[in-house]
Amino acid sequence: MSELCRSVVLKQRPKGEPSAADFEIVETPIPSPHAEQVVTRTLWLSIDPYMRGRLREEQTYAVAIQIGEVMTGETVGEVIASGDPAFEVGDIVVGSRGWQTHSVSPARQLTKIPRGAAPLSAYLGVLGMPGATAYAGVTEICKPKPGETFVVSAASGAVGSVAGQIAKRAGARVVGIAGGAEKCLWVQDSLGFDDCVDHRSMDLRRELQAACPNGVDGYFENVGGAVQAAVFDLLNPFARVAMCGMVSQYNATVMPPGPNLGFVVGKRIHIQGFIVSDRPERLTEWRAMAEPLIADGSLVYREDVVDGLENAPDALAGILDGRNFGKLLVRVAQEAG
Amino acid sequence: MSELCRSVVLKQRPKGEPSAADFEIVETPIPSPHAEQVVTRTLWLSIDPYMRGRLREEQTYAVAIQIGEVMTGETVGEVIASGDPAFEVGDIVVGSRGWQTHSVSPARQLTKIPRGAAPLSAYLGVLGMPGATAYAGVTEICKPKPGETFVVSAASGAVGSVAGQIAKRAGARVVGIAGGAEKCLWVQDSLGFDDCVDHRSMDLRRELQAACPNGVDGYFENVGGAVQAAVFDLLNPFARVAMCGMVSQYNATVMPPGPNLGFVVGKRIHIQGFIVSDRPERLTEWRAMAEPLIADGSLVYREDVVDGLENAPDALAGILDGRNFGKLLVRVAQEAG
Repeated sequence: MSELCRSVVLKQRPKGEPSAADFEIVETPIPSPHAEQVVTRTLWLSIDPYMRGRLREEQTYAVAIQIGEVMTGETVGEVIASGDPAFEVGDIVVGSRGWQTHSVSPARQLTKIPRGAAPLSAYLGVLGMPGATAYAGVTEICKPKPGETFVVSAASGAVGSVAGQIAKRAGARVVGIAGGAEKCLWVQDSLGFDDCVDHRSMDLRRELQAACPNGVDGYFENVGGAVQAAVFDLLNPFARVAMCGMVSQYNATVMPPGPNLGFVVGKRIHIQGFIVSDRPERLTEWRAMAEPLIADGSLVYREDVVDGLENAPDALAGILDGRNFGKLLVRVAQEAG
Repeated sequence: MSELCRSVVLKQRPKGEPSAADFEIVETPIPSPHAEQVVTRTLWLSIDPYMRGRLREEQTYAVAIQIGEVMTGETVGEVIASGDPAFEVGDIVVGSRGWQTHSVSPARQLTKIPRGAAPLSAYLGVLGMPGATAYAGVTEICKPKPGETFVVSAASGAVGSVAGQIAKRAGARVVGIAGGAEKCLWVQDSLGFDDCVDHRSMDLRRELQAACPNGVDGYFENVGGAVQAAVFDLLNPFARVAMCGMVSQYNATVMPPGPNLGFVVGKRIHIQGFIVSDRPERLTEWRAMAEPLIADGSLVYREDVVDGLENAPDALAGILDGRNFGKLLVRVAQEAG
């Protein structure tokens, strides 16, 4: 095992799709913890679409990454040295420790997770921020009711797959939108959605309309663009739209126009943007609810694992282009056997 | 006084701006009331932008007017014959009795209003549906707080003028957007808004930005188009947008594109379409609150009166083009002295 910490830092701001050339790997000594600090070895790194926004010069809701800074990201790590009595060597923790093999953190920024309740990687996906995002958006904004139609885009992704399953449990007719026949098949057969439409179809609008014969009452937006336009055309009066992300335009250098919003008035549409980290208590709540559903197999998830920290930039480019299939993770180090 | 009822009926659906040629006046005998019916003589007819939507073939939130049907509209009328014990000849009532000099109505569709509490015409504007619309949108959706910035478009209109005054009472910095220097001056000097920007300005964006140095926390949307785009650019995180109408596009035959909605996610924007008639109790509530404010002069309003039912079509064309100044009304008959 290397005695150095390897970190992926931003070398230049990507124009359009990010690539490995926009980052570089720097090596530094593995630090020792001061009091109330913990040193961890990263096992799993989460790759999420929101990361593209951090690479932009202009600040979005979070501070932009500066050139030379370590790229941010959620991780699962193992404690290898502790200056805090609440953590012991060997503990497993989740935190936002960035794209690096090791990190030193204030203990209060880490959350201990149990070994054995679920695969550790699940705490970055179905049991982590993406799962909690789905939970918050569906239950607080879309509020699907029995018999209503609920649509979610990026339906095979980490957030969409959970959002649809929660809406299904609430009794809604659930229609996914995903990229390609293989993903659509999985969304229907494995996740149990009522239907799934391929956004690459030449006739997305007609197919979506056929899948939603009674219109759309709740829409969980992950994609934007043509997918958004197609769903908006089908919104029923009093529909609720949870605006979670718009991955189709994260690489855009010029933003395309959006939908004419005239229909929002007459149909009394509710559109709400949200970011789950505004309310961290939702993550705790969701984790407690979902752990047993993972254990008994009733909450289905799928992971797409890339090996090696050096492949994180390519993985990010891939998720922005829909090349992943399920929750995208980088295995930074093997879990101890 | 004529012994006939004159009604304005739709002759053909207007393409673009409506004109008198799209309507015709038909004369019919004044009906007698059956049991539980009331016959009224129209005194005042309200002209409102929403009426343009009723002229479209496709149904919006309300049923489209059919060719040959009397045009809908809110009226103040005087009871001239009653088949219902709750109404007496001479009573003043508001109701949605359409563009006609007389009407026969089920008694339950009429609301008696007092003589003397306020000018009767006010019950179609500041004390009527437009006032209640402003009240609902500001208090339920925009929720302005002291120190926040609240923007309202069509600020000198029946809805906008009330919306801004309510937000001002809530302690917000209130910025109006109106068409032309005369309206802007009135909005500032008579309504007491903190600032008002002319939407016809060549540099709307820069002027609006100067008027809103701390961004925009609440937006009451009456206009759409370029005005909407300029305000959206200034929305702060957690801003609330009450979508009341988009008069700039009511005559459009092809809808222009709208704003890219990417910012809605990161800024956690809340956009809500609403129609006040969904909750008629808000009108009753507002009327009770506002009557004393009209009586003591602390709630300011302005009326733009057109004489004669035959001029209603031109008045409608004018309101869609911003040619009115204040609440637009047709005086259908003189009030009895």
